[in-house]
Amino acid sequence: MKSINLAEKLETFSEHYKPRTVGQFNGHDLMVVKVKGPFNWHKHDDTDDFFLVLKGELTILLRDGSVTLKPGEMYVVPKGVEHCPVAEEEAHILLIEPQGTPNTGNVATAAAKVVI
Amino acid sequence: MKSINLAEKLETFSEHYKPRTVGQFNGHDLMVVKVKGPFNWHKHDDTDDFFLVLKGELTILLRDGSVTLKPGEMYVVPKGVEHCPVAEEEAHILLIEPQGTPNTGNVATAAAKVVI
Repeated sequence: MKSINLAEKLETFSEHYKPRTVGQFNGHDLMVVKVKGPFNWHKHDDTDDFFLVLKGELTILLRDGSVTLKPGEMYVVPKGVEHCPVAEEEAHILLIEPQGTPNTGNVATAAAKVVI
Repeated sequence: MKSINLAEKLETFSEHYKPRTVGQFNGHDLMVVKVKGPFNWHKHDDTDDFFLVLKGELTILLRDGSVTLKPGEMYVVPKGVEHCPVAEEEAHILLIEPQGTPNTGNVATAAAKVVI
């Protein structure tokens, strides 16, 4: 039995928008991701989208506004709601999604699942 | 649309082992809790138990060992596994549990759900 140190996990890779799975919880993947620049507009029809900022700053654009998250701040994008994450500088994020959820909302363009 | 600032939510109360619900995600409650001293031995037959330490240090005793978490470290106690959280000094934790899960594993002794 060992704790999962999120900062240590984040030190093991450098790519942006390529989540790493660091644990499982009730059928969900617990993932860390480094982000920089804009992602793409997408939605998940069947799952809410959980974001907790660990380092840096993340803005989540929504069709009717936006929300900016600093370290220790979280936001849940409800299922079916279009959103586009954007980070001016590199930011580190904890994501939680049901196992198998494509990060882009589309299996054809999604990042592969990588467990570390 | 507003971010959920975990530290600000934690500043609004002082009791230990009385989780506050700060958001919802896929049928789960996102909760912050202040802990100090030992909790009780318990298990959840139907849900894994998610702990992420935000401040301080938390030890989770298990029947066959223990795991100690510092800020930025998380651990998931698998469903059905007996555990007892202990904190020598006050610690602040993010918990995620299916809505309606009794924090003690027993509805008779569980803390009431409080949304902030």
